Amino acid sequence: MKVKDLTPRVLMGPGPSDAHPRVLRAMASPLIGHLDPEFIAMMDDVKSMIQQTMLTKNNLTFLVSAPGSAGMETCLVNLLEPGDECIICINGVFGGRMADIAERCGAKVHKVITPWGEVTTVEQVKKALDACPKPKLVALVHAETSTGALQPIPEISDLVHNAGSLLVVDAVTSYCGVPLKVDEWNIDAIYSGTQKNLSAPPGLSPVSFSDAAVKVLDNRKTKVQSWFLDLTMVKNYWAGAKRAYHHTGPVSSVFAISEALTLVLEEGLENRWKRHYTVHNYLKNQLESMGFRYLVNEENRLPNLNSVFLPEGQDEALLRNRLLNEFNIEVGGGLGDFAGKIWRIGIMGESCTFNHVNMLVGALKQML
Amino acid sequence: MKVKDLTPRVLMGPGPSDAHPRVLRAMASPLIGHLDPEFIAMMDDVKSMIQQTMLTKNNLTFLVSAPGSAGMETCLVNLLEPGDECIICINGVFGGRMADIAERCGAKVHKVITPWGEVTTVEQVKKALDACPKPKLVALVHAETSTGALQPIPEISDLVHNAGSLLVVDAVTSYCGVPLKVDEWNIDAIYSGTQKNLSAPPGLSPVSFSDAAVKVLDNRKTKVQSWFLDLTMVKNYWAGAKRAYHHTGPVSSVFAISEALTLVLEEGLENRWKRHYTVHNYLKNQLESMGFRYLVNEENRLPNLNSVFLPEGQDEALLRNRLLNEFNIEVGGGLGDFAGKIWRIGIMGESCTFNHVNMLVGALKQML
Repeated sequence: MKVKDLTPRVLMGPGPSDAHPRVLRAMASPLIGHLDPEFIAMMDDVKSMIQQTMLTKNNLTFLVSAPGSAGMETCLVNLLEPGDECIICINGVFGGRMADIAERCGAKVHKVITPWGEVTTVEQVKKALDACPKPKLVALVHAETSTGALQPIPEISDLVHNAGSLLVVDAVTSYCGVPLKVDEWNIDAIYSGTQKNLSAPPGLSPVSFSDAAVKVLDNRKTKVQSWFLDLTMVKNYWAGAKRAYHHTGPVSSVFAISEALTLVLEEGLENRWKRHYTVHNYLKNQLESMGFRYLVNEENRLPNLNSVFLPEGQDEALLRNRLLNEFNIEVGGGLGDFAGKIWRIGIMGESCTFNHVNMLVGALKQML
Repeated sequence: MKVKDLTPRVLMGPGPSDAHPRVLRAMASPLIGHLDPEFIAMMDDVKSMIQQTMLTKNNLTFLVSAPGSAGMETCLVNLLEPGDECIICINGVFGGRMADIAERCGAKVHKVITPWGEVTTVEQVKKALDACPKPKLVALVHAETSTGALQPIPEISDLVHNAGSLLVVDAVTSYCGVPLKVDEWNIDAIYSGTQKNLSAPPGLSPVSFSDAAVKVLDNRKTKVQSWFLDLTMVKNYWAGAKRAYHHTGPVSSVFAISEALTLVLEEGLENRWKRHYTVHNYLKNQLESMGFRYLVNEENRLPNLNSVFLPEGQDEALLRNRLLNEFNIEVGGGLGDFAGKIWRIGIMGESCTFNHVNMLVGALKQML
């Protein structure tokens, strides 16, 4: 299959979402060198735009040159050393992935396990801190892409900091889609992706470290186990005075993210959050009227990733394939225990419009 | 700095090189899902094209979703376990980087050190194997991007395999530019980049593992220390029957590489190798007539990356800045001991034309 032969799709799964034409045009710009002064100036501008959209003043704010999962690994391998204790809250695929990575770092992992579709409670974290009173870090997933659950952060953050620990947050599916306030919520290390609410192509991961996290990094006793993700070196490329070469920066992908972030700021961050809730409400009413049923309780429901059980008696795989093949609309299937049981319908970034919902709902009505 | 404000450049440094307009257009294609059957078909096609251009039948041939340095780390973290012994040949920055990564894997590293600009000899490897008769692997750099030295492989490969070890090769700057024969030379693990002779944007790394390397991977006693680069999982996404989700694939970058590989095969691999030598000879004559002097002996000289001392009395940084600012031509400076002393002039992929050389030589004549 060659690029010219691809069928145009409408992307309403868990990511990637549709990209704005300006982002696609940015990707097609001729390359420049990754150490060109103009590219360095673009990196500074991108850093500033990530700070503005994450609502943080963190100096160590940058793009990992690989997808969100590598952003996750960046946060954990840089903060954990062999023998460290940590608490990982698991209510879906991505909490489980964090625990897996932390174990590969040689850390002792205390798992706080919650049924998929629910969120971790303050009481659960309290209990975990009773068993492990001073973990190096506590990690949780702000928006669980596998279930569509939205995790409240501030109260848990207070608990974590009172214990003298760092708070690590997965914001892959929340960043630029729902309220996320890195400094106000006192998040120490955060990673996201580019292919969800930011509507840039997948491939890079915006990451930000608080000063407290940088201090932990600076005081490591052992080398970071990954050379590629070692922030003691990467930070000199993104934030150092001399901009030392570390690896070849992914120039075209940075072009795309620069343009995507520019679009977010043109719309306004709060307007963008509101848009996701407005379109979600419209989608929700339509889905429920057709017999779809939400997995997550209303109070912890992510607006931009809608995890729903199909109407009684429908074959989800068959219907999802028809949607792709007859209407060129992609929605996501379930993961883990929910494979074959739910759909994950994304209305993220450029895919978050009434037109998208009307296309999907119209197609569903034709099929059901 | 925004994308629209960038100055167009002529890229003649150590990478990225200029991209073909078809590659840029491919990057601008609307996204599709990373698990879409059409994208899976494209991955199969890309895998086949990497096999054809690496001259290998290796089934585990794929793209790492991150730049060449992550390809390097992929090869080493998947093959090495704590306590393993390995031999790393170092004649520039990238051999040194391999040793650093191998040490982070907990391996005992035996270093074969050669002055920068030279290549590792058969005798050196023999001696290293005397001291460490059965290393898990021996690693060397086919084309040292920091010096422009081209390492002969076949004889060393025989030695390595007679010792029952695996041969790991860095082909970042050789792949698609000079002869590289993975199966004929019996290379067990190889990684490259996309932004050199392939002339695609930087960001991904073509990697291939022989069956012998896969066997070592399958028989590991410990988990791979990197989750993101763990081939026991990644291989199910690229080569498994079920195509299990691992991380979100960098869709647009794969589009670009698909188109770039298609262009290589349209030109013909051997024609492309020849073109690099032909244009190199033309460049070399021009440079030498102006008083530039090559760092590397003629017999081990890489044609596509020309490391040269400047004519007597010239300030390299000043001249390189003028070249960039007045002519928009990028060439690379030296690294390590050669910082401030040499230029690295790349004629790679789409930047390997007589027109490129004439632009550069003309500008130099105007300035000198």
